[in-house]
Amino acid sequence: MASAPSISYSITVRLELPAGGTAISRLTTAVEQAGGIVTALDVTASGHDRLRIDVTCAASDTDHAQEIVVALGRLEGVTVHKVSDRTFLMHLGGTIEMASKHPIRNRDDLSMVYTPGVARVCEAIVANPEDARRLTVKRNAVAVVTDGSAVLGLGNIGPAAALPVMEGKAALFKRFAGIDAWPLCLDTQDPDQIVEVVKAISPGFAGINLEDISAPRCFEIEARLREVLDIPVFHDDQHGTAIVVLAALTNALRVVGKKLSEVRLVMSGAGAAGTAILKLLMEAGVRDVVVADVEGVIHRDRPNLHESLRWLAESTNTAGVTGDLRDALVGADVFVGVSAPNLLTGEDVAKMADGSIVFALANPVPEIDPGAARAHAAVVATGRSDYPNQINNVLAFPGVFRGLLDASATQVHPSLLVAAAEAIASVVTADELNANYIIPSVFHSDVHTAVAGAVRQAAEKASGRVPAGSS
Amino acid sequence: MASAPSISYSITVRLELPAGGTAISRLTTAVEQAGGIVTALDVTASGHDRLRIDVTCAASDTDHAQEIVVALGRLEGVTVHKVSDRTFLMHLGGTIEMASKHPIRNRDDLSMVYTPGVARVCEAIVANPEDARRLTVKRNAVAVVTDGSAVLGLGNIGPAAALPVMEGKAALFKRFAGIDAWPLCLDTQDPDQIVEVVKAISPGFAGINLEDISAPRCFEIEARLREVLDIPVFHDDQHGTAIVVLAALTNALRVVGKKLSEVRLVMSGAGAAGTAILKLLMEAGVRDVVVADVEGVIHRDRPNLHESLRWLAESTNTAGVTGDLRDALVGADVFVGVSAPNLLTGEDVAKMADGSIVFALANPVPEIDPGAARAHAAVVATGRSDYPNQINNVLAFPGVFRGLLDASATQVHPSLLVAAAEAIASVVTADELNANYIIPSVFHSDVHTAVAGAVRQAAEKASGRVPAGSS
Repeated sequence: MASAPSISYSITVRLELPAGGTAISRLTTAVEQAGGIVTALDVTASGHDRLRIDVTCAASDTDHAQEIVVALGRLEGVTVHKVSDRTFLMHLGGTIEMASKHPIRNRDDLSMVYTPGVARVCEAIVANPEDARRLTVKRNAVAVVTDGSAVLGLGNIGPAAALPVMEGKAALFKRFAGIDAWPLCLDTQDPDQIVEVVKAISPGFAGINLEDISAPRCFEIEARLREVLDIPVFHDDQHGTAIVVLAALTNALRVVGKKLSEVRLVMSGAGAAGTAILKLLMEAGVRDVVVADVEGVIHRDRPNLHESLRWLAESTNTAGVTGDLRDALVGADVFVGVSAPNLLTGEDVAKMADGSIVFALANPVPEIDPGAARAHAAVVATGRSDYPNQINNVLAFPGVFRGLLDASATQVHPSLLVAAAEAIASVVTADELNANYIIPSVFHSDVHTAVAGAVRQAAEKASGRVPAGSS
Repeated sequence: MASAPSISYSITVRLELPAGGTAISRLTTAVEQAGGIVTALDVTASGHDRLRIDVTCAASDTDHAQEIVVALGRLEGVTVHKVSDRTFLMHLGGTIEMASKHPIRNRDDLSMVYTPGVARVCEAIVANPEDARRLTVKRNAVAVVTDGSAVLGLGNIGPAAALPVMEGKAALFKRFAGIDAWPLCLDTQDPDQIVEVVKAISPGFAGINLEDISAPRCFEIEARLREVLDIPVFHDDQHGTAIVVLAALTNALRVVGKKLSEVRLVMSGAGAAGTAILKLLMEAGVRDVVVADVEGVIHRDRPNLHESLRWLAESTNTAGVTGDLRDALVGADVFVGVSAPNLLTGEDVAKMADGSIVFALANPVPEIDPGAARAHAAVVATGRSDYPNQINNVLAFPGVFRGLLDASATQVHPSLLVAAAEAIASVVTADELNANYIIPSVFHSDVHTAVAGAVRQAAEKASGRVPAGSS
């Protein structure tokens, strides 16, 4: 599964070593033997017997970069100092900032942006609270809230270490949907406190994006916030992923000529993302579903069934399938994995029905090697950007929030998630559709506006308001 | 005290009236009779018997603008619709936004700003938590926190209506000190909850600016936050004002040739700002102080002394002065008012010592008419921008926070407030100094960097760290 050395993993290693004839060739040899590519070599300080050198080289991934650094450090007489890379340089001082929309050049500007002029704006909002959405950033502002308990695949790394992800998220909100998002990384992981804090900061925002909060706390936090807040709450790890899976599945089924309501679907993984995907697929019409976790297929009579799996056991597997994931997969039309690496082989996929669909979304290492899956399945999708059909929730969340904000939505109605998925799927035209292109790129010029429009319309319909343009 | 019609109060009134020969002249006459100036008149819709007209006119202040609107509404057959003004237009959709520092043009950019590259940045912070200040926006981020309980002079208007002020504040932070501030308007006014919420959101910020929180809750909230947080907490309404008063007084005393430690100072007002000013003046060396509130001079034996005044009663008025504000003022060198309009007359100032200094800071109407004060005092300052010597806390807070952030300060040491005041005072050179120029403009090119440098140095000294540049 290792990919080629890439510029995204380009690192610069500052080190010191004894000056001498073979000093530099020893470095380049070490990098090459470790599988890296040296792209630059700068001597940044030189003395009679010591050299300080910045070695820049491309690696395949984080572990590989680390291996290169270790290999360099093992060389006799070499001291490794700072290791930096393009990604780190981009994150120096953070990736986002606050900007003023107007220049403040003189007393006149000052007296309108701030006192005394601003007092009139405040008074207008006192007189008509709805004006907060017209006269402040609230209308376009989303809080990206995390407690740092389940960040990417890194686990419970806490709020400070989660901030770079939340900043990146905010940058994507702006890039793809023109939304002003600000990260709030909380130093509490207590659901009661999180609910209280998010409620307290809500007046300045028109939406809450929960991010990287571990299950099962994320379910409770989201549900309680939806009850107490008058602005929409969206847990991207659940619903963003679910939307994109439904979109991809819709188009994959178009490729193989099957119907959502008729397929047999097997899912591996019963965590936050898995449960949210399942709920949305069922909302969209999937009926025959079997879910397996690390203890095997989930069914009503499984001994010691954990409380959090009760809903799954009662809502899926009407045929009462038992056994393990591989047993369940025999004859199935669709596999959706949001679980763990390398659970399946090509043989397992070969036993699925004709025209089978495999979504192996464990990241960075999927449930099955995509190459092996492709030998037997009609359509394969993963979470990786170096294979076709990447299930990437950047396709969903910017447009979803754009639509919610534009509709001044107060909640996230399930119909709106289905509408978002349909919008993403519809961006791939009948002419373009094939087994290697079931889902558009996040840089597709239409996808975010399509999602925003569909979500706005669905939100307005759900709230009983007349859609814009028809008044 | 009414000032001339100004562009900052330029309003546009949309109204409908019967079409006819004198229709428009009736409007202009009404505006002029109400003391306004018509600057534009646009017919935006016209029918057989009705006209819709946008009348733009300059007013003196909020009340005056309202009077003009009322005068227009009283005209026979006129219906007033929307009233808008330049200030409102500037606040449409808010005055601030979130911006991404880097373009996200392609997959490479995406994989560095966000996943998978960002994971390495998170891991670096896990390994070395101090790196959060290097690799995230935290280093430059300040939360502007309010509960909307004492906004400008508007009182307890709540969090949503306070947002325009907090946005303006954030815009000034950026304009004058390059700081990324984001407003957090809380929907709770309970001190316990405010402390909990601010503590919870603190990991993503390097400083907390408390704003427009009513006394005495603001004292408790600030004190408790300073105890639980590892980043500086600054209540601008108290300390920002105090810094600028000390700066102005320092220079006013240079004008009249007196010393801080030798003057007799009388203060009117014992609220949050007054108490903070007093504490800072005493920290800087003022010794002879008498404070009066609405019930008269505060002294140890005053009956029914409120608990919140106990500190004042025990720390000031060592001579045991009694009576009212006017009695105390006889023979005093300095008057500082942070209280209520029109408490004093020229005669009261005439009874002060020779070379008297009057800071009448009640806003918008000072404790004494500045003209009357100037007839007897050597130096007069107010909070208004239409008189010389404006005591404006925009002179302080941007540079104070810049210095705190640059020093990675964990607290606000009192020495740093004195250093900030000295820096502001020092921007006015000996050649420039006179009774009408004791304090620089907020647009002075040096003031904010001077404050930042002084605060940084004081913060580093207070924390025992070696100042930058000397290592």
